[in-house]
Amino acid sequence: MISETYQAMLGGKSVIRELSEYAAARGKEIGYENVFDFSLGNPSVPVPDAFNERVVELLRTQSSMAVHGYSPSLGIPSVREKLAASLNRRFGMNYTADDIFMASGAAGALAHAFRLVTAPGDEILTFAPFFPEYHPYVDLTGAKLRVVPANTEDFQINFDAFKQMLTPAVHAVLINTPNNPSGAVYSEATLTALSAILAEKEQEFGHDIWLISDEPYREIVFDGKKAPYVSRFYPRTLSCYSFSKSLSLPGERIGYVAVNPASGVSKMLVSMCGQISRGIGHNCPPSLIQLAVADTCDLTADLSVYETNMNILYDELKALGFDIVRPGGTFYMFPRAMEEDAVAFCKKALRYDLILVPSDSFGVPGYFRIAYCIDTKKVERSLAAFRRFVQEEY
Amino acid sequence: MISETYQAMLGGKSVIRELSEYAAARGKEIGYENVFDFSLGNPSVPVPDAFNERVVELLRTQSSMAVHGYSPSLGIPSVREKLAASLNRRFGMNYTADDIFMASGAAGALAHAFRLVTAPGDEILTFAPFFPEYHPYVDLTGAKLRVVPANTEDFQINFDAFKQMLTPAVHAVLINTPNNPSGAVYSEATLTALSAILAEKEQEFGHDIWLISDEPYREIVFDGKKAPYVSRFYPRTLSCYSFSKSLSLPGERIGYVAVNPASGVSKMLVSMCGQISRGIGHNCPPSLIQLAVADTCDLTADLSVYETNMNILYDELKALGFDIVRPGGTFYMFPRAMEEDAVAFCKKALRYDLILVPSDSFGVPGYFRIAYCIDTKKVERSLAAFRRFVQEEY
Repeated sequence: MISETYQAMLGGKSVIRELSEYAAARGKEIGYENVFDFSLGNPSVPVPDAFNERVVELLRTQSSMAVHGYSPSLGIPSVREKLAASLNRRFGMNYTADDIFMASGAAGALAHAFRLVTAPGDEILTFAPFFPEYHPYVDLTGAKLRVVPANTEDFQINFDAFKQMLTPAVHAVLINTPNNPSGAVYSEATLTALSAILAEKEQEFGHDIWLISDEPYREIVFDGKKAPYVSRFYPRTLSCYSFSKSLSLPGERIGYVAVNPASGVSKMLVSMCGQISRGIGHNCPPSLIQLAVADTCDLTADLSVYETNMNILYDELKALGFDIVRPGGTFYMFPRAMEEDAVAFCKKALRYDLILVPSDSFGVPGYFRIAYCIDTKKVERSLAAFRRFVQEEY
Repeated sequence: MISETYQAMLGGKSVIRELSEYAAARGKEIGYENVFDFSLGNPSVPVPDAFNERVVELLRTQSSMAVHGYSPSLGIPSVREKLAASLNRRFGMNYTADDIFMASGAAGALAHAFRLVTAPGDEILTFAPFFPEYHPYVDLTGAKLRVVPANTEDFQINFDAFKQMLTPAVHAVLINTPNNPSGAVYSEATLTALSAILAEKEQEFGHDIWLISDEPYREIVFDGKKAPYVSRFYPRTLSCYSFSKSLSLPGERIGYVAVNPASGVSKMLVSMCGQISRGIGHNCPPSLIQLAVADTCDLTADLSVYETNMNILYDELKALGFDIVRPGGTFYMFPRAMEEDAVAFCKKALRYDLILVPSDSFGVPGYFRIAYCIDTKKVERSLAAFRRFVQEEY
């Protein structure tokens, strides 16, 4: 019989996708260049040439079996080795190849991480504002996602609320830093405090609590800073990475789970990922892409445009009177809406062809998300629309 | 807490993988050219040049966003359209793009198909001999795989046993033709009879029974024949395809689920695949590979070597007294072992550096699988080893 679970999900179209479809339709009417589409988190800068050149070189110089053959179920050993070495060099870790599981982007990495350390019925805590897809990702494993209310002061962690919700039912905590949608980068102080609480509660509860760190925006940090590497703060960390944003290749579905060897069980967990894959039909990211990423993993696309765009928008929106926590990274900004109802606010913005995403599905009411991974010229042209919007409506 | 389900699976290494690892180790001792490794179903012929050239052309001529950008969750529309047109042209179907869901190889396609039409507790019937990975694939969805005993006469379907096991608990039937490991190609008569029984039982039970057709070997058929296209025989067919074998790119993880539009619910099921993906972290095959396959989907690698190898082995093994059903396709052969215990038989074969897989994990005792997707010269050299093996041991 046709699955009722998945049939029931068909109604629930994502707000982001609906807005993006609206933007495309509106673009057909008035020209897409006149639609200020801030809805989608889709990288706007090209992949580094070196990546494409490496793909071509592999195709031209390696045997068909070597390039297109099956990858072992945990990933190609030489690829895992190169990624481990890169992480060690950059973040002072001591991963070996055996601590790395190659996954199909961050979604694939998270699908494995959740199944590694929770059973159906277990709770996973995450912090508002959060990526709305965490709900289907977690719900369909049988675990329960519970959302800790936001710290709207600076979008670091609301520790009081966190401590209250951290009961023995919780087996994993899911964080996303740099954060979609707030752009906040968790500070060393935040990660140190989080780690201390987890360690204390593990003692109290008598069971492990795993930290699942979703970090596809790790390389997009502003003001010349770097994001603290989460796994350095807590031994039982599963780092879920995707090259989608750093290399601008979201369509190629390439990432990994890196298990902190200080957990003492990293090799076992990585082997278990191979078993999880069998059940969910995962079977490794494509060999060609694995091989090309292994040799370009220290590069990034030209990410500077995101900082440029952020500064332009931040200055203008502040001047217009918006209440905004200045993003430390990503290509998102999360200002407070100028009325309580963010949905109504974003609906009014459409009159000015500003496509903004209301914050409700991110777990915080009254805010909106701007995804400024678009051309800088368009960001500049959008400022007049923002001015008219605020002047005429508020 | 660390998942007990997946931890418990760690012990169960596949027999095939163990043998393949043994072969690699033995190869280091005596030279891999002297090990007759018939263990793995890994294509041995190169990808068609046109595929690699299309990849290079895409990288050189298309924008980074067009080639490396996100694919919509059901697959790139132009790719789905081209694949539908190809299937219609080749098999007289009338698919539209909306009937096709792009999946990460056959494993990804099957993961979606099982979840589409069964709920935990439902039964899925398959026929021995069968691909052993069906067990974890199905078990981890919560459905139950039950195996209909083999028809060892010709490895078509044992219909008497099938009818007995086809109870109201069964919601899907899983077939694999051309078959791994037997090499049998289900005849039109077999598919017609299967379809009639399913239709009759649907009436009797008052619920649908779906036919899940796993067909990665569809293009590898011998004697100038073609495999009957399963979906033409039964409207509620989910065709699960992979280009791994036809294009010799198993590492690139590209395939699809094609839902027969005659089912009346194909568009809904394909949309539901997008929801299933969210739960299992699937998120589409890589964009670059999707685009390249769309333009080379009517090609195949040079598959003739498999038929050459089959004929060499079949003639020699028959002459040595083996009882074999001559394969109609694939790159497998499934002779009866020369003693009842196939494991003992295959162990003795190792003395002659013949790596053969005992049939027990395929659901039939007393047989063995030969995967002859290896160089023809090596197949020829293996004949002397087979002769010595039989003469000295039996």
